[in-house]
Amino acid sequence: MITSDDPRVRKFQRELSAGTVALVLLALLDGADGPMYGYQVAKRLEGAARGALGMKQGTLYPVLRSLETLGLLASEVEPSVAGPPRRYYTITDDGRAMLDRWRGIWDDTRTFVDALLAAPATGGLAAAPRDGGADE
Amino acid sequence: MITSDDPRVRKFQRELSAGTVALVLLALLDGADGPMYGYQVAKRLEGAARGALGMKQGTLYPVLRSLETLGLLASEVEPSVAGPPRRYYTITDDGRAMLDRWRGIWDDTRTFVDALLAAPATGGLAAAPRDGGADE
Repeated sequence: MITSDDPRVRKFQRELSAGTVALVLLALLDGADGPMYGYQVAKRLEGAARGALGMKQGTLYPVLRSLETLGLLASEVEPSVAGPPRRYYTITDDGRAMLDRWRGIWDDTRTFVDALLAAPATGGLAAAPRDGGADE
Repeated sequence: MITSDDPRVRKFQRELSAGTVALVLLALLDGADGPMYGYQVAKRLEGAARGALGMKQGTLYPVLRSLETLGLLASEVEPSVAGPPRRYYTITDDGRAMLDRWRGIWDDTRTFVDALLAAPATGGLAAAPRDGGADE
């Protein structure tokens, strides 16, 4: 019996979320009406959805900072009426362009993995032509 | 203009493939007729499919070894008629059980990411009821 605490289950989940969390945050900020701060982002992804990515709230902040370091997000600190100042994130033009690329990579990966999970024996390449053409 | 050599494109591809390559290899060996050696696995995943995961042939071997270390694959070295001996891999019972878990995690992640990419403003939760029920 394999439990969800099995380190091999957690390792897989962690590896799978490494790329997808960045993609999801970028898409979320691309679709946002305006700048968002970390807690707003976390709430937007809450509940079952966040569980699916094995995402704890604390793990979002380093990814937001990393996306800023990469030039894909920009941030500004603004005072808050109640509580400490908040760092608001917006997507940059470079971030929008990168989101397009990442979407493409995600689509290719998902298509390939799903095809292979459905038909492992053919390497996921359903009915790929095997003949090399006229010269064989 | 963002090229495929952009380190941020490569980073995303690398992160996304970290988990998916292990999943794909386990599924492939689960669906195989018998033990397979590394080169056979690489051929099975060749061409466009491998490109989708940004997988170079050399990157498969460490993942096969890692899956064995995790107890999900077993291997045996057999002499080869022409060339050096080959290490043949088979999936273990534990590997089959883990494959089921990993498939579930993959399905959840894919569903969530796709939903969020389609509707980022709602956090991917299409038509989630907002009213708390009778007591509001």
